[in-house]
Amino acid sequence: MSTAWIKQPILPVSEAAKNQARKRLSKMAKPLGSLGVLEDALIRLAGMQNSPTPSVDIARIVVFAADHGVVEAASYQGASPYSQVSTLQRVKTVLSGRGAVSIMARHLGFEMEVVNAGMAEKIAELPGLINCSAGRGTRNFQVGPAMTEEQLVMALLAGQEAVERASQGGVQIFVGGEIAIGKSISAAAITSALLGISPDTISGPGSGGSPEGMAQKAKIIETALALHLPTIKQPLQALRALGGFEAAALCGAFIACGQRGIPAIVDGFVAATAALVAVSIHPPLREWLLFGHRSAEPGQLSLLRAISGQPILHLDMHLGEGTGATAALSLLRMACVIHKEMILIDELES
Amino acid sequence: MSTAWIKQPILPVSEAAKNQARKRLSKMAKPLGSLGVLEDALIRLAGMQNSPTPSVDIARIVVFAADHGVVEAASYQGASPYSQVSTLQRVKTVLSGRGAVSIMARHLGFEMEVVNAGMAEKIAELPGLINCSAGRGTRNFQVGPAMTEEQLVMALLAGQEAVERASQGGVQIFVGGEIAIGKSISAAAITSALLGISPDTISGPGSGGSPEGMAQKAKIIETALALHLPTIKQPLQALRALGGFEAAALCGAFIACGQRGIPAIVDGFVAATAALVAVSIHPPLREWLLFGHRSAEPGQLSLLRAISGQPILHLDMHLGEGTGATAALSLLRMACVIHKEMILIDELES
Repeated sequence: MSTAWIKQPILPVSEAAKNQARKRLSKMAKPLGSLGVLEDALIRLAGMQNSPTPSVDIARIVVFAADHGVVEAASYQGASPYSQVSTLQRVKTVLSGRGAVSIMARHLGFEMEVVNAGMAEKIAELPGLINCSAGRGTRNFQVGPAMTEEQLVMALLAGQEAVERASQGGVQIFVGGEIAIGKSISAAAITSALLGISPDTISGPGSGGSPEGMAQKAKIIETALALHLPTIKQPLQALRALGGFEAAALCGAFIACGQRGIPAIVDGFVAATAALVAVSIHPPLREWLLFGHRSAEPGQLSLLRAISGQPILHLDMHLGEGTGATAALSLLRMACVIHKEMILIDELES
Repeated sequence: MSTAWIKQPILPVSEAAKNQARKRLSKMAKPLGSLGVLEDALIRLAGMQNSPTPSVDIARIVVFAADHGVVEAASYQGASPYSQVSTLQRVKTVLSGRGAVSIMARHLGFEMEVVNAGMAEKIAELPGLINCSAGRGTRNFQVGPAMTEEQLVMALLAGQEAVERASQGGVQIFVGGEIAIGKSISAAAITSALLGISPDTISGPGSGGSPEGMAQKAKIIETALALHLPTIKQPLQALRALGGFEAAALCGAFIACGQRGIPAIVDGFVAATAALVAVSIHPPLREWLLFGHRSAEPGQLSLLRAISGQPILHLDMHLGEGTGATAALSLLRMACVIHKEMILIDELES
């Protein structure tokens, strides 16, 4: 399988368009800086879209679904109220139009697709599901690397292909989300490995675990780090050893966004993990990433600091599926409309 | 002029509907609490609307425009880059459809109206403007009370009448905004008087003042407080002595919302001042208020603490006009749709 695409260069953003957008903001008949954190996002978006008046009316949310081997381990029992079965169940719900992200996409008029990046359950034809599976769930990372080299490449490619489809569809911004029971413990393990933060302090509530569950998760991460840290020399190796197919797909998607010139808005903890790995491979990719939402996960804050990401929203949501980024995107779209339509100072009647 | 309406009781909210909404949240196929701060707003809204599945599709934004005598005082020169002329200019811009709040209302499909609660400029017929003027701007509060008793009553009534119109229009939620050069120094003076906070620490940037301007504003507030504090025994007296017609109109509007059973979403600093005064008159009114946005104004944080308000957004916006609350409302509307349409646990295929 070809990996040549991964090394392809990231496109530059337009500093000229950023300056034009900044200038327009200063000429709008409003107090300076009064769109708050949305102004910085607008300016950066202008640079990505090479337009003084950017627009995100046409947006695509891609939800990557996958499973984690660690969830089936005996040591994981009780750490979370969910099992692998829930991944497929949530995928079916989203495809049926009654999942959180499907309702949001419909309400906001955004496109949405669901990609099987590697679910454990055997899936017969499921209308609407795009199959790019890298395997029937990852391996339990307490006993070996979560993915083979080939699986890592396949999962990265699942993300790249989603961006290719989005690019052909002419989308103006890409939102990556995920459905994957076990994604939080995996993201915490990767964050721990990359940033050197103790599993104790990084292990969060995930999708609703108890304090005991969190302590149990920290122990699992410690076991995994003891096994893998000696062999992790680069961020991509941490992704392979500890990651989920959903995180790898997001990582591939973010890289492809920078290569194709499509702005991406990063959702929560898992997406931030993927973004950090992607930026470590291609530092200029940072310019193509916006940050949507800060959740209650303690690890996400550390990642955002590491990558200098300023999220637009702090709603303490933890629905997953790209919902936090989608909520932020709805406000960013409104800011784009204000930026384009608001009266300028020199148009005012004196 | 009748003031009897002010004492009319506030309607109770439905604890039963709140419980039903809470129960529905717990039965939705999502992690507990995963809509974050939006869940509390949803539950409270259910109580106000007496419905287990509340809705804010039909919303009205009312922008109260007024002027402040203090802005014309010699001591104010240089404290702010704006003068009274700007109030009318911004009103014209909003009515023309190219102001921030008009663009947001159109983009989001919300109703909007602009009320002249007491602008200084003489206004010939201005299409779309609703005239409920309490006077040609307030008096400079450094030399005497900003309003007469009669003017206070008129301004409160301007708010009550706006809610009456909204009620006849069948709106599901009310957003109050304001356009009033000088509104921030006035709100800071009221906050200082009500909460006993030093003018130094409460005087904020307003619509874009310099550090020198902020120090100058603090001095003006000190002068005003020295004059008025001895006579202020109740919050409503602080509003009359230091307030703007826009703040009084918002105060009247919030009271009328509670009396009519219409939920209100409080915008920024000025609206929070009005909310505190309104709740001091009618403590049960607190149940009818949601909080939209925390701005960069230091005084707003103190007010929010005093009234136990948890704002949905922290975007550091300071556009005024109700834009912060409107942005929050767009997310709340989405949360209502998710709450209504999301699959429940007992509907899942096993």
